[in-house]
Amino acid sequence: MLRTKRAAGRMYSRKLLRREVRKIYKRWLGLLISAETLLTVRYAETDRMGIVHHSNYPIWFEAGRMDFFQKIGASYTGIEAQGILLPLVRLQCDYKQAIRFGEQILVRTVLAKISAVKTEFSYEIYQPGNEKFLASGVTVHAWTDQNLKPVALAKALPKVYELLRQAL
Amino acid sequence: MLRTKRAAGRMYSRKLLRREVRKIYKRWLGLLISAETLLTVRYAETDRMGIVHHSNYPIWFEAGRMDFFQKIGASYTGIEAQGILLPLVRLQCDYKQAIRFGEQILVRTVLAKISAVKTEFSYEIYQPGNEKFLASGVTVHAWTDQNLKPVALAKALPKVYELLRQAL
Amino acid sequence: MLRTKRAAGRMYSRKLLRREVRKIYKRWLGLLISAETLLTVRYAETDRMGIVHHSNYPIWFEAGRMDFFQKIGASYTGIEAQGILLPLVRLQCDYKQAIRFGEQILVRTVLAKISAVKTEFSYEIYQPGNEKFLASGVTVHAWTDQNLKPVALAKALPKVYELLRQAL
Amino acid sequence: MLRTKRAAGRMYSRKLLRREVRKIYKRWLGLLISAETLLTVRYAETDRMGIVHHSNYPIWFEAGRMDFFQKIGASYTGIEAQGILLPLVRLQCDYKQAIRFGEQILVRTVLAKISAVKTEFSYEIYQPGNEKFLASGVTVHAWTDQNLKPVALAKALPKVYELLRQAL
Repeated sequence: MLRTKRAAGRMYSRKLLRREVRKIYKRWLGLLISAETLLTVRYAETDRMGIVHHSNYPIWFEAGRMDFFQKIGASYTGIEAQGILLPLVRLQCDYKQAIRFGEQILVRTVLAKISAVKTEFSYEIYQPGNEKFLASGVTVHAWTDQNLKPVALAKALPKVYELLRQAL
Repeated sequence: MLRTKRAAGRMYSRKLLRREVRKIYKRWLGLLISAETLLTVRYAETDRMGIVHHSNYPIWFEAGRMDFFQKIGASYTGIEAQGILLPLVRLQCDYKQAIRFGEQILVRTVLAKISAVKTEFSYEIYQPGNEKFLASGVTVHAWTDQNLKPVALAKALPKVYELLRQAL
Repeated sequence: MLRTKRAAGRMYSRKLLRREVRKIYKRWLGLLISAETLLTVRYAETDRMGIVHHSNYPIWFEAGRMDFFQKIGASYTGIEAQGILLPLVRLQCDYKQAIRFGEQILVRTVLAKISAVKTEFSYEIYQPGNEKFLASGVTVHAWTDQNLKPVALAKALPKVYELLRQAL
Repeated sequence: MLRTKRAAGRMYSRKLLRREVRKIYKRWLGLLISAETLLTVRYAETDRMGIVHHSNYPIWFEAGRMDFFQKIGASYTGIEAQGILLPLVRLQCDYKQAIRFGEQILVRTVLAKISAVKTEFSYEIYQPGNEKFLASGVTVHAWTDQNLKPVALAKALPKVYELLRQAL
């Protein structure tokens, strides 16, 4: 759904389309690896509009991303301990429905793409037990060393690279 | 620059292209109304990577947006006092270069688009005196009442609508 | 422990001392009602020192406070829905040991004091399964209406007042 | 004012009293070095109570503290560049009056105490041009190395120590 929605806004290349179709297909078959992170909305996350301030969603995505690494057997703290960082290159978030203090939310994180130096995750935020998502997002990351110079993950951390490839 | 960069990632419709060209043209002529917000990076805005955490950029964009309203003569608190809100529908941020504690940054905010119920702003973050931007972003907003139901700005706040149209 | 530690820094009035003794006594007997909130430290909560930024502790205390209300059968959202707010009057936090990204922490919240218009909570942050606490804190609150005018809780919400008194 | 207010809550030792009197005296004579930091309240800093969330005050204090270091000629980034950190040991904040979105505030930072390994700052938050303060606070810090082991500032950074002593 997220995908077809986004598709409306741009023309799809053949390659991109093929990847999207494969993803939907895998999801239907239950083969898509995803992490599910349950969070309770904090009072401090609201603003004077009475709803969650939009700057908190990327923080929730991040919590989901960390759980995704754990799920596939790659510890994010372990990665950083080896001197490899994963800063953001791009963030996108679509806000469909307001989220309020005290609500429980479920962040579903999926690995969307992986290349030599970049990795992309996509996220959907749900109310538990409700299929309609409240928000969705994408983060694109570069793998870098501690000076923020890009590194090839396959060389720097071949094991993590393999775990990610299998989770695609 | 931001625009051509983004253009690379998608195909441009004729209409979109025309708007982009007009915008670049206006900017060159110095006719584009923009707000410039000077901020000092806070320690609390950094993370353990040693750089600013990505979730702070939307907060800086917001500060820029508020200054934009002030610049065109429309007070944002005044708008909210009349029961009209401007929640986000979409956020996009591109991180070009890390930003660090203590640095001064300049947020340049421009009104990108305005329609019956939506309004789009675009942002570029600079180091003062340096033309190369460190980050750029877009926020898309819906005008709503206090129950978050969409309203037509032209009807709800005709004066604000006019000020925005003139700033385009 | 928290209490004796703090005691070192000031002279105790007889009344205060009696209350502290009763509290320690109740805790030993397992009669002290407390809420335990388990949290995982978020990446965004760290700063460039590599540890959690101190401004996040009050947010964790708040999460603990909300769980405390739930534990005694008083919903905080329910309280606000009736137009009663609980803003802070005072915050105190003691940082004993650094807390890092990815760690699990346990916030133990206790009602410390309740009077006509004020309510005080105290907090201790632990690593699960470790009795040595990492931080402790106190928040003092005023019960107010939506214009932030003080109200007497016993009159405004007698049921909530009773639930709190029993939890003391 | 802040001081006498706080004084009500505890008994004063002779030594503490003498220090407080000297401080008030210096302030009257205009000899007390203080940094004044002007900030505009951000929308993201509010919560659903419609006022600034209490967890933002320590972040404002921090901004004030950084300006204090700059004012006395000691760069905080310079200190960290030499491997010395200044984590918090204790935070205290008193909230006198709600602060709202869009308001301008002035953080007045004063060095309150300095010993071999600890340093204490005190803060008052004002509306510019209004002598009545909206909030006040204290932060106590330890000087440490990058492993968070305490260091004696006088030995580690004698020049910074001297600048601080003169600012007392």
